[in-house]
Amino acid sequence: MTLQEYSDLFLPAIEKALQTAVFESMDAPRFDGLREMIAYHLGWEGEGSGPGAQGKRIRPQLLLLCSAAAGGDWRDALQSAAAVELIHNFSLIHDDIEDRSETRHGRLTVWAKWGGAQAVNTGDAMFALAFQTLARTSVTLPADQVLSAINILQNACFELTQGQFLDISYETSRTIPFADYWAMVGGKTAALLAGCAQIGGLVGGAEEARQQAFYRFGYSLGLAFQAQDDALGIWGDVALLGKSTESDLMNGKKTLPVVFALEQGGEFSRRWLAGPIRQDEVAPLAELLRHEGAEDYTLAEAKRLTQAALQALDQAAENRGAGAALRELAQRLLRRGY
Amino acid sequence: MTLQEYSDLFLPAIEKALQTAVFESMDAPRFDGLREMIAYHLGWEGEGSGPGAQGKRIRPQLLLLCSAAAGGDWRDALQSAAAVELIHNFSLIHDDIEDRSETRHGRLTVWAKWGGAQAVNTGDAMFALAFQTLARTSVTLPADQVLSAINILQNACFELTQGQFLDISYETSRTIPFADYWAMVGGKTAALLAGCAQIGGLVGGAEEARQQAFYRFGYSLGLAFQAQDDALGIWGDVALLGKSTESDLMNGKKTLPVVFALEQGGEFSRRWLAGPIRQDEVAPLAELLRHEGAEDYTLAEAKRLTQAALQALDQAAENRGAGAALRELAQRLLRRGY
Repeated sequence: MTLQEYSDLFLPAIEKALQTAVFESMDAPRFDGLREMIAYHLGWEGEGSGPGAQGKRIRPQLLLLCSAAAGGDWRDALQSAAAVELIHNFSLIHDDIEDRSETRHGRLTVWAKWGGAQAVNTGDAMFALAFQTLARTSVTLPADQVLSAINILQNACFELTQGQFLDISYETSRTIPFADYWAMVGGKTAALLAGCAQIGGLVGGAEEARQQAFYRFGYSLGLAFQAQDDALGIWGDVALLGKSTESDLMNGKKTLPVVFALEQGGEFSRRWLAGPIRQDEVAPLAELLRHEGAEDYTLAEAKRLTQAALQALDQAAENRGAGAALRELAQRLLRRGY
Repeated sequence: MTLQEYSDLFLPAIEKALQTAVFESMDAPRFDGLREMIAYHLGWEGEGSGPGAQGKRIRPQLLLLCSAAAGGDWRDALQSAAAVELIHNFSLIHDDIEDRSETRHGRLTVWAKWGGAQAVNTGDAMFALAFQTLARTSVTLPADQVLSAINILQNACFELTQGQFLDISYETSRTIPFADYWAMVGGKTAALLAGCAQIGGLVGGAEEARQQAFYRFGYSLGLAFQAQDDALGIWGDVALLGKSTESDLMNGKKTLPVVFALEQGGEFSRRWLAGPIRQDEVAPLAELLRHEGAEDYTLAEAKRLTQAALQALDQAAENRGAGAALRELAQRLLRRGY
């Protein structure tokens, strides 16, 4: 099967598992309002609901593919898949509060619609719900494996908060040391993808060493994705137009090309440290950044990390069909063009 | 041993287990700031730190006592005890954000000191840390028991968020239906105490039926505590003085006596529904509320719930010494005078 065929198979099943997890846990009418906020955020209810509001469900798909690639039946991994998507969405609800983002997928965010108090609490409810859902896999899996899965996801959550801590801490700063950049994106992006891949491997029957290979696959994939995303945020078509919210340069985002240039200490670095970038500077500064080698460096990093991911995948995957689909997924990241 | 002697034994051990959980999880210097916020909130560091800033550690003490009462060695339950205290404190950090409370134990709250973004994230980090800590008990306990403990605590967390949802939802309302009042305090106060008691029983070696008795003990104890607290908030000495922040009547808090009187629909109810209570009305309205039977009702409920707790304890406890200390703890709640 191709990646697309897997997706077509997985997506309705993921949605159903998510809905079971959410709706079965809150059947008392007095909690309708809490359920409503969760269902709204997940794109099922309210204004603008529908597939476009549901996100791409990348993490549960990755988990299911890894479980199939480990030689398991992906259906056995559906509850774990729902759990990781709940964790991802708990973190989005809290991120939106922390970043004061008022829209997501073109809709009001939970805090913008219901206020910060309900939004903080709704995120917490989804956090708890995620682990309840994961713990329910104990019906099909032995206790020590469920416990391992819980441990993996809990560690990913903790790394997520560590990455977020760095992100918030550096918000008012124009610089970030290289090592802290990697720790930040490692926590914010790679840790959960790595956890998804490892849990997929675990539930699919991979032994410890292969589980670790799945973990490395997910982690490298996450970093590669971030590097590519950072390049797109500066040299992508939309970014270069310099529309206020779409260029990472104007937003002062400390992305990999910028961190690289700051380390070089050249002309871009001097301009960056002097203060916010104006709209008319976006195109020339992107060109300067390219001239200083930041684009080559970033794309090379994305490529290197993708290679590392594919190498780990070779050690991890057993089922050739699902393995090929995962390979396709990894390579598609690099093809996301400018 | 008396309750006091148990406390003297437990408290330093709880503090040490908590510190191990927090400090061992974050040894990289880049996360010092995150560790600092947690250590500040737990009363170990920063302005005003010390025993007075640490809270009473009621939940871990309850857990340890129950584990001893179940016939176990309380030292084996120390990591679980640290985990429940971390959960309690995660919820306090988020509650303070949701209620916009600027001080706790006479010190600035985390959000008031570091801003809402860091505070939301620090609460999340403690949530994840709590389950990491609990999962570490797998060194001494079989996997299925650790999984049970995780399940119990996760359910308590979910109920906590459900209770909090009701609390926030009714914030702008002068009334709350009786059933929702009990669901709210059940979630906010009783669920975690019940979880502590049950995990203590589980770790102490109690079989399923006795674990359930421990759960009922903790749940009834929590509701009894809340009823007594609600009475104190209206007829307690400090409350009657009507100092702005200390009378539940002036704060518009929907406590058990008020919910009872609203159900009666008498004179108090009419005044309450008409709008906020002024300071000079506090004493006469407290007297009116008493006249309408709300004090008798509330104290009778506190007594009934304490009896239910003690009855459950009789079915649960095996070790007479620790059982007697738990009995002392329950009865002390009722003696908290006006």
